[in-house]
Amino acid sequence: MYQLYIANKNYSSWSLRPWVLLRELAIPFEERLVPFANGSSYETFRAFSPTGQVPCLHDGGTVLWNSLGIIEYLAEHHVGVWPADVAARAWARCAAAEMHAGFFALRQHCPMNCGVRVNLETIPEALQRDLARLDALWSEGLERFGGPFLAGSAFSAVDAFFAPVAFRVQTYGLTLGAPAQAYAARLLALPSLQRWQDEALRETWREPGHEEETRNVGTWLEDKRAAT
Amino acid sequence: MYQLYIANKNYSSWSLRPWVLLRELAIPFEERLVPFANGSSYETFRAFSPTGQVPCLHDGGTVLWNSLGIIEYLAEHHVGVWPADVAARAWARCAAAEMHAGFFALRQHCPMNCGVRVNLETIPEALQRDLARLDALWSEGLERFGGPFLAGSAFSAVDAFFAPVAFRVQTYGLTLGAPAQAYAARLLALPSLQRWQDEALRETWREPGHEEETRNVGTWLEDKRAAT
Ligand SMILES: N[C@@H](CCC(=O)N[C@@H](CS)C(=O)NCC(=O)O)C(=O)O
Ligand SMILES: N[C@@H](CCC(=O)N[C@@H](CS)C(=O)NCC(=O)O)C(=O)O
Repeated sequence: MYQLYIANKNYSSWSLRPWVLLRELAIPFEERLVPFANGSSYETFRAFSPTGQVPCLHDGGTVLWNSLGIIEYLAEHHVGVWPADVAARAWARCAAAEMHAGFFALRQHCPMNCGVRVNLETIPEALQRDLARLDALWSEGLERFGGPFLAGSAFSAVDAFFAPVAFRVQTYGLTLGAPAQAYAARLLALPSLQRWQDEALRETWREPGHEEETRNVGTWLEDKRAAT
Repeated sequence: MYQLYIANKNYSSWSLRPWVLLRELAIPFEERLVPFANGSSYETFRAFSPTGQVPCLHDGGTVLWNSLGIIEYLAEHHVGVWPADVAARAWARCAAAEMHAGFFALRQHCPMNCGVRVNLETIPEALQRDLARLDALWSEGLERFGGPFLAGSAFSAVDAFFAPVAFRVQTYGLTLGAPAQAYAARLLALPSLQRWQDEALRETWREPGHEEETRNVGTWLEDKRAAT
């Protein structure tokens, strides 16, 4: 059975990606949640991951140490990781890779913190550009492949790659065009994402670095998490 | 026939990745080199790439707009993009993805600039960490899969992903452990990389931003490029 190492559901956007894909495809796995250490988690995570980062998937002796590596490995072993249509699959892979190495302003300015609601003080130009690109990319996929998911009728790895963005849209009240906004709402309504969120809200761990990142960007409106 | 949009060979590390893979696998393609504009190339590159970045591969009407998306697309159509062995392939994909979204200190502190030789003033701690990880990763691959390439006896996409690092090792005189150092030298000796380098040295374009990046990090020892 696969073992998927992840960190706090409230904070860890990269952990969410393979987790939600495994859930949506109903692929059995054992979840190994190791909370972030205060400050750097490098030493803690090095025990199971060569980069000291999560997610990390173990399949017997095989270690897959990042989100895209995990997903392509799963794609070799399970149907439905990527869309069956060749054009949709090519598009989905480019979009997922763009998320993997891009959208830096969105990632930095709107860190994932599922349980809180924040009013952004400002939307810096770099964030505006990321949101415009996100909007264009999502709208293109939805229109071109017919929805309701990004690359067609079935949830696939590209949706998993953008799932953390749906939590960011919710936390920071980000505004997108109608098709993209509706898509974010559809992701949030998935049973898998609802379950992730429930479990995130029940966590009582707080990591000062992640908390500060979120506090720095705007006014904290609400904290839905269990008391510490 | 594929059309591969790239930027200046002297500077564009991301362009080099699919280019060297196509060459090593002897896959025919038409090279479309569009030099960087001074400052941002976004508007120029938007004419053929939705993100305003290179590389971008066009296959008829199909547009693949980043390096990993291109490589997985090629992997569906050609033999040898990834290693045939399942364990080597899993490892290669994780290593390439790690390069795709990591090694930021190496990328920032040692920008690719094939034609010059620079003595680094200092090796900041973050760069030291990146070099230690690079050394460990390369040594692991070479030992585990038997070399002479990272994931076995044949050049594959993971070698293409690290090809720009070989130019950085050369430009900045970076020191790695013996197996990793020898591997960098092997990459540089490949006919494809030699050809890329020759063409880079013949370029007379200079982009002030890229030049400044290289000037800022150390003492310029030599400039082997054609005069402007
Ligand atoms: N490129 C990596 C990114 C992984 C990553 O950044 N993970 C974060 C958590 S979301 C981490 O492990 N950080 C370690 C730390 O905070 O010390 C992937 O695709 O998996
Ligand atoms: N994640 C992208 C990175 C592409 C990238 O950063 N390309 C650079 C050139 S090496 C670029 O196009 N920069 C545009 C500019 O400088 O304006 C990929 O994998 O292809």
